[in-house]
Amino acid sequence: MQIRFLTYMSIVALLFSSTTLTADPLRNHVKDKFAVIPHEPPNLPGNPTTPQKLALGEMLFFDPRLSVSHSISCASCHNLSLAGTDNRSRSLGTAWQQGGRNAPTVLNSVYNFVQFWDGRAADLAQQAGGPIQNPVEMGSTEQKTVDVLKGIPGYVDAFKAAFPDRDDVITFDNVEKAIAVFETILTTPDAPFDRWLRGDDRALTQDQKEGLRLFVDKGCSNCHNGVNIGGGTYDRFGVVKAPSSDIRPPDDLGRGAITHSVSDNYVFKVPTLRNIALTAPYFHSGQVWDLRQAVKIMSDVQLGVQLTDTEANQIVAFLNSLTGRPPFVPAPDLPPTVTTTPRPVP
Amino acid sequence: MQIRFLTYMSIVALLFSSTTLTADPLRNHVKDKFAVIPHEPPNLPGNPTTPQKLALGEMLFFDPRLSVSHSISCASCHNLSLAGTDNRSRSLGTAWQQGGRNAPTVLNSVYNFVQFWDGRAADLAQQAGGPIQNPVEMGSTEQKTVDVLKGIPGYVDAFKAAFPDRDDVITFDNVEKAIAVFETILTTPDAPFDRWLRGDDRALTQDQKEGLRLFVDKGCSNCHNGVNIGGGTYDRFGVVKAPSSDIRPPDDLGRGAITHSVSDNYVFKVPTLRNIALTAPYFHSGQVWDLRQAVKIMSDVQLGVQLTDTEANQIVAFLNSLTGRPPFVPAPDLPPTVTTTPRPVP
Repeated sequence: MQIRFLTYMSIVALLFSSTTLTADPLRNHVKDKFAVIPHEPPNLPGNPTTPQKLALGEMLFFDPRLSVSHSISCASCHNLSLAGTDNRSRSLGTAWQQGGRNAPTVLNSVYNFVQFWDGRAADLAQQAGGPIQNPVEMGSTEQKTVDVLKGIPGYVDAFKAAFPDRDDVITFDNVEKAIAVFETILTTPDAPFDRWLRGDDRALTQDQKEGLRLFVDKGCSNCHNGVNIGGGTYDRFGVVKAPSSDIRPPDDLGRGAITHSVSDNYVFKVPTLRNIALTAPYFHSGQVWDLRQAVKIMSDVQLGVQLTDTEANQIVAFLNSLTGRPPFVPAPDLPPTVTTTPRPVP
Repeated sequence: MQIRFLTYMSIVALLFSSTTLTADPLRNHVKDKFAVIPHEPPNLPGNPTTPQKLALGEMLFFDPRLSVSHSISCASCHNLSLAGTDNRSRSLGTAWQQGGRNAPTVLNSVYNFVQFWDGRAADLAQQAGGPIQNPVEMGSTEQKTVDVLKGIPGYVDAFKAAFPDRDDVITFDNVEKAIAVFETILTTPDAPFDRWLRGDDRALTQDQKEGLRLFVDKGCSNCHNGVNIGGGTYDRFGVVKAPSSDIRPPDDLGRGAITHSVSDNYVFKVPTLRNIALTAPYFHSGQVWDLRQAVKIMSDVQLGVQLTDTEANQIVAFLNSLTGRPPFVPAPDLPPTVTTTPRPVP
């Protein structure tokens, strides 16, 4: 009887969803531009997910002993309680130094085509090693990281379980790989927009639908599209005109500093808009705290469009529909510091 | 049948435990000095636990926006992944300043008779407000804390639910009360020593039993007793002779700085030894990283006893039996920073 009931419900759901899928012109208008977040996290090429690697990556992500002071972890700036960010303009790192750019959310970062604002890391693993070694962030080195982990007996077994085929398992490469695998599960499926894309017409309010229509028709979705509503291309910040110098500091050339090509100056990875309502402040400079203001600035400098207040409000309403279901990740119990563990500095 | 089986098991368990309780002379010798950690967390006088207050307290405990920089939470130094400490000599706070003393574990702190190393807080609620306002720790003020929380809409409902009888619910007093209630659940029951005290003779190894015997007979349990194996009295650090000045810095008078009584100089709250194997480094100065060395120093300066290596090892083995079951506390999703939220400094 339970199975019969479920079958009945499935048929109703199918009928309902196919009806609304074909009946809603807006969905037909936009559906090719976007994709839902899958319920199953993806596997990384050459770095398959195993429960042991996931568990190790989770430990490393939360372990402040990866920093030279033993006080800053990946989770410090990519705080999973704060939607994978720290809600600061620029993060505080070793010796209270401020990072160069706003910390992007780690949530759904597996769906970005490259990592960092300037795309200087090809994938999550390469990204993971960056902040650990950055002198203004976690301030450690590859060698120090490996020494600390080798000095914590509880990690030896965790690395052996995660990388069973090797002898020397505690390597910086494996640290990066394990963290990357953990980050694949930090996705936020089932946002109202995903549910609407799947056919639930009531998942968006009328204002959100109007906002979505504007978002597409005004041109925002030229760059902010795909599964991450962004995160799939580079673009210049200031296509039509330069943003003010507080919002786009002249000395941060973005991708231009990586490629040394003038045409890449002020070019950045288009950020994801997933969970954008939770991740203020905005832009790589982190200088705008109001989402409506950020929307107006973007339409102005990227598209040459002056939005009315109503239009901006409706787009913000749509952006609120991109807040998904956060991953459930209890902070792990970490293996204890012992006599053989290298000491924090200072 | 299920009930019959349970009754049968209970009788077996009772017989077994009463047998071992009476049969083991060591248990009879020590049982009046110690107490197990109850499975149910206690209620605080005048501040009864409710699910809503627990949930609010958990949010506040993990929220870095209680600090002036929005980057340091209670959990930063009382990291639940690291047994409620930060495994540093002294914690890093606002502007990378180091705290005055080693951060004591928050685990089981509800069973300490007073709070802080010098007992200057009478209870958990009073303690909770201290680091928030300490300029070298979280660096905020009562007013700033209240302003930030009032500027985060998600907190308004959480405070109303936790304190339903008041109009002005977001007060510093309620911040302290909610955090204190959350901290009551941060206990670690069912350590091997607790299981042994309850009658499971096999919960301790022979070395641990020898260590326990030494711990009592040499005099450690004169101060380290009760449910927290400490945490119930004050005592001078250096009863028989003064510890070296790196371990007991001359300018830290301990309780003497609170009472201005010379007889209280270098007097501190006897710390809990619960989970001591996880909470290096040791002493209020955090200058000793090796538990065996800490045991030898204590027996020397407090009791005038020179332990052999074997004796020290056995006591350390016993101390390892005080590692309990950590609380399962998933970090909560925090309500987002919005335009009305006061900004972090710097």
